Amino acid sequence: MTKSATKKRVVIIGGGFGGLYTAKALASKDIDVLLIDKKNHHTFQPLLYQVATTVLSPNQIASPLRHILRRAKNVEVLLGEVVGINRENRTIRLSDDSETSFDFLVVAAGARHSYFGNDNWEADAPGLKTVEDATEIRRRILTAFEDAERDAYLTGDDTPINFAIVGGGPTGVELAGAIAGIARHVLVNDFQTIDTNRARVMLFEGTDRLLGTFAPDLSVKAEKQLVDLGVEVHTNSLVTSIEPNRIKVGDDWIPVRVTLWATGVAASPLGRLLSADTDRAGRVLVRPDLRLSDNDNIFVIGDMASLKDTKGRIVPGLGSSAMQMGKATAKNILRLIRGEASVPFTYLDKGNMATIGRNKAIAEIGKVHLSGLIAWLAWCFVHVMLMIGFKNKILVLFEWVWSYVSGQGSVRLITGSSEPK
Amino acid sequence: MTKSATKKRVVIIGGGFGGLYTAKALASKDIDVLLIDKKNHHTFQPLLYQVATTVLSPNQIASPLRHILRRAKNVEVLLGEVVGINRENRTIRLSDDSETSFDFLVVAAGARHSYFGNDNWEADAPGLKTVEDATEIRRRILTAFEDAERDAYLTGDDTPINFAIVGGGPTGVELAGAIAGIARHVLVNDFQTIDTNRARVMLFEGTDRLLGTFAPDLSVKAEKQLVDLGVEVHTNSLVTSIEPNRIKVGDDWIPVRVTLWATGVAASPLGRLLSADTDRAGRVLVRPDLRLSDNDNIFVIGDMASLKDTKGRIVPGLGSSAMQMGKATAKNILRLIRGEASVPFTYLDKGNMATIGRNKAIAEIGKVHLSGLIAWLAWCFVHVMLMIGFKNKILVLFEWVWSYVSGQGSVRLITGSSEPK
Repeated sequence: MTKSATKKRVVIIGGGFGGLYTAKALASKDIDVLLIDKKNHHTFQPLLYQVATTVLSPNQIASPLRHILRRAKNVEVLLGEVVGINRENRTIRLSDDSETSFDFLVVAAGARHSYFGNDNWEADAPGLKTVEDATEIRRRILTAFEDAERDAYLTGDDTPINFAIVGGGPTGVELAGAIAGIARHVLVNDFQTIDTNRARVMLFEGTDRLLGTFAPDLSVKAEKQLVDLGVEVHTNSLVTSIEPNRIKVGDDWIPVRVTLWATGVAASPLGRLLSADTDRAGRVLVRPDLRLSDNDNIFVIGDMASLKDTKGRIVPGLGSSAMQMGKATAKNILRLIRGEASVPFTYLDKGNMATIGRNKAIAEIGKVHLSGLIAWLAWCFVHVMLMIGFKNKILVLFEWVWSYVSGQGSVRLITGSSEPK
Repeated sequence: MTKSATKKRVVIIGGGFGGLYTAKALASKDIDVLLIDKKNHHTFQPLLYQVATTVLSPNQIASPLRHILRRAKNVEVLLGEVVGINRENRTIRLSDDSETSFDFLVVAAGARHSYFGNDNWEADAPGLKTVEDATEIRRRILTAFEDAERDAYLTGDDTPINFAIVGGGPTGVELAGAIAGIARHVLVNDFQTIDTNRARVMLFEGTDRLLGTFAPDLSVKAEKQLVDLGVEVHTNSLVTSIEPNRIKVGDDWIPVRVTLWATGVAASPLGRLLSADTDRAGRVLVRPDLRLSDNDNIFVIGDMASLKDTKGRIVPGLGSSAMQMGKATAKNILRLIRGEASVPFTYLDKGNMATIGRNKAIAEIGKVHLSGLIAWLAWCFVHVMLMIGFKNKILVLFEWVWSYVSGQGSVRLITGSSEPK
């Protein structure tokens, strides 16, 4: 047992970038740390779209949390779901009704997609936040081609293979580019009857440009690169309804085989358990030191937190921000335990990148704007470096080189049994 | 379209060893071949237990059928489920009600486990036949340790971590050895509160020895190697009831966290659609040339077929037999199309191996009986050679070497959401 009556006790909810980096920064300190997550693994979310699009397998981007933290003997990792937070008694309750107490609580449970009040759309337009989401999306993409081949061969039916991606942020752009790549390169020689080149990949964005968090010149370049890949980019195009096999854009219904959702942010419902003020997306409004406005023991970080940093900038919902918040929170907890004052959080903008396809990407690092091959190489380098574990770095590099040379995705398995529509 | 009015048309149901090797042997011949499977991939079943026990990932032992057969331009591959076979009209019907015709039909849909009339046991004691089965078993094994850790940490509960494997054939022996390895080596440093060494792995076999298809001296050696790994081997122990968290062996109830089923054979229910004679396991009784007794156009091969070969031996349900039957069937189909007589099937016994754990295995090749390290190396060599695809060979070798050197399983992900019990 690592519990002790005298040591201060920190409970962290969530093993994403925020929670994991808090735990890492508290490793080997003279406190007891408990990290709780609903999954047994940390997911490297920036590469989830590559699992969804057959390049990587789940284990290459996900590692067991307790293995990552195995050398941190003061950190216990538990698989569990937090269903209650008692601010007064400083306890949390898990779904099996067990309870545990904390001196400091770090809430880092992340976000999912928001369907803007149309939660019934989710079944026909899944989002991409977990490994399970990724294998489900992979199943739908591959099944669409399989269904088309079967229909074409057995009945001569040639309903077009239409993919719709809703939302022109980084995830939408990555998915659209990768699906076009699958159709044009990966699958083209595997199908005898259908021509996978004829698959249409449509990307719908409600505003007037893709990748709104980037500089406008990079949006233009990203759109051009997507069009080069064969993606149909529709800006100023609001998706107003989603049904099985069709979506409504403005007033027009468009037949589709697969719809994917890549817009909207809804912070974890754990925010509500905190009885704290939230913004429209459910993000918790926190003080500059990332604590609740009316509680000195509870921090909220990562995608769940809404704040402007010391320089007045809204901190974006990126892995990089969450890591920085995790490290800052660990330091503040140690300060508070020593009786010192906490320090406000300052966000360091390390730049922003989005990948589009083979040799295609954009990157914005301060005033430096890159696109094409150089941005793509930078993207590859940064993401391999950020991966956790030497072995995953090696394997992901191997898969990328293999896929680059062979033009083949590695993991074209349809698994799972739920019906796509 | 690859369909043609003049060419003979062969439909193969099932992309396991039997169906895949039939299709490969018919590649580039002047006939139309259609291979239909419920999955989009061929599964290398001999290594499924390594997916279930965290060593390999699903994509390393499963490859898309249409990719394996992409160069065979006369072979169409379809994802579909056959629900009807019309012997008179020579047509099959798929679950979407589409139909197609055949001149020759090869039924190679394999087998699942039989629960001997207790199908309700399956929920609490899953078997291992598909990639989905393997990830579900992996989920249950890892979740058992996670649950134990959470209970021990939060409530001090120390219910033993008991695993029960029902059936002492190759799959049961492999699972038992591998789970013991996970507990003793892979996980031991990852858990702070529980001692995974205390996990009990119990293997129950109804007859008086393990691995009844091997020579008795090898059964003895296999049992000794399992005991060395810490497995409790119970022969003459019939499991008479299975419930959540406990099983009944003879008259005694034993508390367990995970039960796995590794005994009994039930041929695919497609056998019934053929209106043919079957044995007790639902295997179709076929003529020596593997055709139905009363039909000249339908072959049944692999685990679905029951026959004694030309030398009077019962052909065992092995991947090796299925491959040989597939090749023989392809040759017979070509003979029949040319107007020649078919040739009876002769089974070539290539020997039999079972692996038990690190450096531990048995092998029986004719009169040569091997065990221990040499058998284990032979097993590794044969299985890498049999894998489909250069890349999978490389990756599996890499994983094995990594796992051998590091003592770590690679793929310790809990995915999926179904509740274990």
